Amino acid sequence: MASTYGRMFRVTTWGESHGPALGAVIDGCPAGLEISEELIQRDLDRRRVGQSKVTSPRQEKDRVQILSGVFEGRTTGAPISLITYNADADSSKYDAIRDLFRPGHADYTYWAKYGHRDHRGGGRSSARETWGRVAAGAVARALLRTIGVEVYGFVRQLHTIQMETFDRDEIDRNPVRCPDPVAAEKMVQAILEAKEAKDSLGGLVEVRADNVPPGLGEPTADKLDALLGQAMFSIPAVKGVEIGEGFGAFLLTGKQHNDEFYMENGRVRTYSNHAGGMLGGISNGEQIVVRLAVKPTSSVSQPQRTVDIHGNEREILVEGRHDPSICPRVVPVAEAMMCLVLADLYLWNRMARV
Amino acid sequence: MASTYGRMFRVTTWGESHGPALGAVIDGCPAGLEISEELIQRDLDRRRVGQSKVTSPRQEKDRVQILSGVFEGRTTGAPISLITYNADADSSKYDAIRDLFRPGHADYTYWAKYGHRDHRGGGRSSARETWGRVAAGAVARALLRTIGVEVYGFVRQLHTIQMETFDRDEIDRNPVRCPDPVAAEKMVQAILEAKEAKDSLGGLVEVRADNVPPGLGEPTADKLDALLGQAMFSIPAVKGVEIGEGFGAFLLTGKQHNDEFYMENGRVRTYSNHAGGMLGGISNGEQIVVRLAVKPTSSVSQPQRTVDIHGNEREILVEGRHDPSICPRVVPVAEAMMCLVLADLYLWNRMARV
Amino acid sequence: MASTYGRMFRVTTWGESHGPALGAVIDGCPAGLEISEELIQRDLDRRRVGQSKVTSPRQEKDRVQILSGVFEGRTTGAPISLITYNADADSSKYDAIRDLFRPGHADYTYWAKYGHRDHRGGGRSSARETWGRVAAGAVARALLRTIGVEVYGFVRQLHTIQMETFDRDEIDRNPVRCPDPVAAEKMVQAILEAKEAKDSLGGLVEVRADNVPPGLGEPTADKLDALLGQAMFSIPAVKGVEIGEGFGAFLLTGKQHNDEFYMENGRVRTYSNHAGGMLGGISNGEQIVVRLAVKPTSSVSQPQRTVDIHGNEREILVEGRHDPSICPRVVPVAEAMMCLVLADLYLWNRMARV
Amino acid sequence: MASTYGRMFRVTTWGESHGPALGAVIDGCPAGLEISEELIQRDLDRRRVGQSKVTSPRQEKDRVQILSGVFEGRTTGAPISLITYNADADSSKYDAIRDLFRPGHADYTYWAKYGHRDHRGGGRSSARETWGRVAAGAVARALLRTIGVEVYGFVRQLHTIQMETFDRDEIDRNPVRCPDPVAAEKMVQAILEAKEAKDSLGGLVEVRADNVPPGLGEPTADKLDALLGQAMFSIPAVKGVEIGEGFGAFLLTGKQHNDEFYMENGRVRTYSNHAGGMLGGISNGEQIVVRLAVKPTSSVSQPQRTVDIHGNEREILVEGRHDPSICPRVVPVAEAMMCLVLADLYLWNRMARV
Repeated sequence: MASTYGRMFRVTTWGESHGPALGAVIDGCPAGLEISEELIQRDLDRRRVGQSKVTSPRQEKDRVQILSGVFEGRTTGAPISLITYNADADSSKYDAIRDLFRPGHADYTYWAKYGHRDHRGGGRSSARETWGRVAAGAVARALLRTIGVEVYGFVRQLHTIQMETFDRDEIDRNPVRCPDPVAAEKMVQAILEAKEAKDSLGGLVEVRADNVPPGLGEPTADKLDALLGQAMFSIPAVKGVEIGEGFGAFLLTGKQHNDEFYMENGRVRTYSNHAGGMLGGISNGEQIVVRLAVKPTSSVSQPQRTVDIHGNEREILVEGRHDPSICPRVVPVAEAMMCLVLADLYLWNRMARV
Repeated sequence: MASTYGRMFRVTTWGESHGPALGAVIDGCPAGLEISEELIQRDLDRRRVGQSKVTSPRQEKDRVQILSGVFEGRTTGAPISLITYNADADSSKYDAIRDLFRPGHADYTYWAKYGHRDHRGGGRSSARETWGRVAAGAVARALLRTIGVEVYGFVRQLHTIQMETFDRDEIDRNPVRCPDPVAAEKMVQAILEAKEAKDSLGGLVEVRADNVPPGLGEPTADKLDALLGQAMFSIPAVKGVEIGEGFGAFLLTGKQHNDEFYMENGRVRTYSNHAGGMLGGISNGEQIVVRLAVKPTSSVSQPQRTVDIHGNEREILVEGRHDPSICPRVVPVAEAMMCLVLADLYLWNRMARV
Repeated sequence: MASTYGRMFRVTTWGESHGPALGAVIDGCPAGLEISEELIQRDLDRRRVGQSKVTSPRQEKDRVQILSGVFEGRTTGAPISLITYNADADSSKYDAIRDLFRPGHADYTYWAKYGHRDHRGGGRSSARETWGRVAAGAVARALLRTIGVEVYGFVRQLHTIQMETFDRDEIDRNPVRCPDPVAAEKMVQAILEAKEAKDSLGGLVEVRADNVPPGLGEPTADKLDALLGQAMFSIPAVKGVEIGEGFGAFLLTGKQHNDEFYMENGRVRTYSNHAGGMLGGISNGEQIVVRLAVKPTSSVSQPQRTVDIHGNEREILVEGRHDPSICPRVVPVAEAMMCLVLADLYLWNRMARV
Repeated sequence: MASTYGRMFRVTTWGESHGPALGAVIDGCPAGLEISEELIQRDLDRRRVGQSKVTSPRQEKDRVQILSGVFEGRTTGAPISLITYNADADSSKYDAIRDLFRPGHADYTYWAKYGHRDHRGGGRSSARETWGRVAAGAVARALLRTIGVEVYGFVRQLHTIQMETFDRDEIDRNPVRCPDPVAAEKMVQAILEAKEAKDSLGGLVEVRADNVPPGLGEPTADKLDALLGQAMFSIPAVKGVEIGEGFGAFLLTGKQHNDEFYMENGRVRTYSNHAGGMLGGISNGEQIVVRLAVKPTSSVSQPQRTVDIHGNEREILVEGRHDPSICPRVVPVAEAMMCLVLADLYLWNRMARV
């Protein structure tokens, strides 16, 4: 519902880019889960700005505080309130464009919808909102780890540069989070060139989940793929989502696409995984594979045509501090959303049978 | 929630492929809307099987009855119950595969989740469930028409055959619902060949909405794109969803992708529509454009490797009556889901301002 | 949400008093529960009109049909659709009062809210809507029986006549459902006299649940008492709800009211049960006790002052067929609501711990 | 849902009695509403402890901070985050009873449900949780004021002392919030005597809403009375809720209880208001009247029999700082809940008609 992700494991985020603080409240987390600020901070640090030359120079420590729901290191079943205070919000750059709509941003649509908006740094529509998702996602990840589920993501393609090799250990070794170190180097160059050219780049992000038990997903509206679709499209800049073969599925015939079954150590397995880990919207025990099309960052520091809130046609020059490509930072957010969806469905599935 | 689509305009579907009946209950439809069985039937007839040589030969009239919520031709605000009785369910073909899991189908995952399932014709996971969505979608469409919104869909690509021209009037003139009559003819041939070869084909379906007012979409979890993502992925066989440029977006730079603004007759417009009609998850008044990757039908009448409920490896030969390509019938379902999402957000938006 | 009771075990009812049919859809019932039409009919028969001289003479068999969600006698986890067709709806009596608002009824408020209403027999606001609750309640009751929970209700007081003895076996032996046969006889007389006088009577209904395990209830909004409050007040004619000592609680001091704990066979018990089976909104393992204040039936066949939809002051004489006291028929409805709430919280509680 | 009140105007509270902070997040508040910390503080100050000799001596300023959702004095449609930091939490008194269950409190049931709990000051089950409700209620009250709705409450009866006169201006002049100054004086005495006797007292609280427009309430599950029932029973210590005549309704006959209609200045009115402002669960434009039975505070400083978490029978002496009667402080909480329910239904009602 609006600012709340999930039905059973429910996460409500709040906060604006240039407001005093940002936060999330988790309701529905089971009691007895070991949680600490350190554990959450680990995921948050992977999302943080100011980490490298390819991200925004805004400096935010993004330190999380747990304000409720945890007692002596374990959750109590009560709502878990997570908060961070904004430090380096510089609103001065936004005064000049207070009444202008930045192309590609949500300025116009928020104004059309609400009639009153916090224009500073995108306000509520800023990607800073994802702080709360990543914080809550770390709790969901901890819950999933109790049943062995492992979630990770990476950048598969940046603009036209594709990953060609896969080494999971490489992902966090380079600032673009690409599992192919050669491609990673090219991606970094491309981003720096785009930055130099006052332009920006998009890419293709992939997220996977291993060891997901069969049975997660609630037909028909809350299928696993439907909830992943909602979760991933709710991430700023995502314009496409595909599962398994995705947009390549229709280039195969039915016979080619079907994943045939066999038995392995008493478990039902499939020889291939074109389906990306689910059938009929319910996990089948194979690896869950989701890919996101991420558009190039909307903030480009070139003059663009626009209009103002009074209906005048104007020119705009967006300044401020931005990521020339948001892809590397989409990775931890997409992981968090995957964790939120799986944690939600894992709890929900406890009610499947008498 | 599970079998319910929508938050404000809520549609709960029920029914199995081979059960006595199928239905939908709409809760949250405003009072005073003109509705009739004829109006709903019109949309249902576009979804029906047995319409042409490229769909399943199962014969179902799919006649809708309105059992509540409408009085003297107008809605009363009470739940609207819609029902149809199954006629031509032939369960005999399914006896042989009662204990077997059909590859590509939800047999295994339903069994893994629930431990007890109606195996006949896919039971609840059958595409027959979409009857209720299309019936309810017709009511949503009527609601949207009161504000001028128009929704339509078509097949853009079938296997490797792409649409090359666009004539909206062509869509319903051919059995594959392709707006290009030349491509349509090739698609029909391809489907018949696949049927002959006991195989199946997938494709690319597009849905558009015109005249959507700016402001629809509820940040951050229930953005317009997030709800479309959920809705479209909940359709059986959909493996990918993209909006506007979608998976092509990251091949453009930020400058190229941004849709610049101008004024037209007092309305804010954009010169291009790469974004597909939304910014920050809220409609911007431009055409909404969504595309779905539809996998090839899972039912192929060739022997496949599988396992049974006792954990034995087996061979399966799926018979029954199936669509060699589900694409033409995904069109009305995808239109219905678009209508459900827009109707939901249209009502929700009434609460945006004091 | 509106026409839906429950969060986990969700029941949506539909149908009007004089429409073609009434029904309920249950979503969220676990798979594997044994259910039959006979089992559901048993509860429905206790709610039916035309059973005795103290209820409405309208004749309705109220036969239930299960249209989905049950396969070979057990639930599948899919939505369970329950339906009954109206038989003896006589709308002719309502033509005369089509434009008039019956005092005590919802005619005016539905008209004020929706601007268009089905006036026949109260339309959606009729107590016939409770058919669906009782049908679904029977399924909830079956689910609760798997853990030993037993729910029953009775009439404690009718107008000024109070129950003085309690014999549970007496409840279904008399038409007023009073566990005291002597009081029951007086109640029947009082109802017949009220009917003769073209007036009506209310009363006090009690519902109890035995063997409820500790732990049911979700703080803080969805406490057990909060959900019982919502459920019971949603029953037509209920004007008050109390739990345990209820409105007598404040006549005791804290020391008198507190239920002290002791151990019994390894179980935590309380010496008294002033709290009515819950503490902090969570069941404590003692008997759950709820009482409802039921107003006298609003349909009285005497002239009353009213207004019409055009704003004219008028006199109205309500005819039609009514219960001179709704209390005996509130009993099975209140039992059903108790079952729905407990089933909901029983499932929800499965997510309380890691 | 669990810690969230409301469906459209949704308030999620978080925080424990002795945790670092308490808060609430409001989601669904329309944009453009004038809000300030001062406005919210006014309601909070009426709820605060340490105000008089009849309340707990714990000192908490309960200062609210608005962390999001408000820009330049008006709401933006984004979630509104409200927070206060705990100051005077003294946990030392709770060490002795860490493993003991206080009679009348939620200690046992939280432990039974969650298996791990914050025992300090009642943790999450403490009435301190109501801070967030009152803070959010102040925002709801501001929203309701835009349409002229006025909500107020008072203590009608304390133990056996009943209010005999009514002067609304008296309510906030005395520490028990009784509109009868003579009765108020007796109530204060009674509370001081109970305190002296290490005992506690309950009472009867009434809340009213004036100028509520007709049409609020969503049949059938979310009727106005049903939502009030849920909201009021969710307040700690409430054991009964009645509307209009409530438990007195069944002492009247139908003819006596019905509120007949007439016209007044073009508005439909009723001669009496036995129904308490609603018919069929929808507001009818008359004054809404709800009364709550509040049990005597469970914390009494006398030895009581109890058990510990290991299943041993023990004696407990509860110390800490408590209100000898919670009634005066239930008043602002009950007002807040009334405001939350009405604001919720007011927004919801915008979707009632096409």
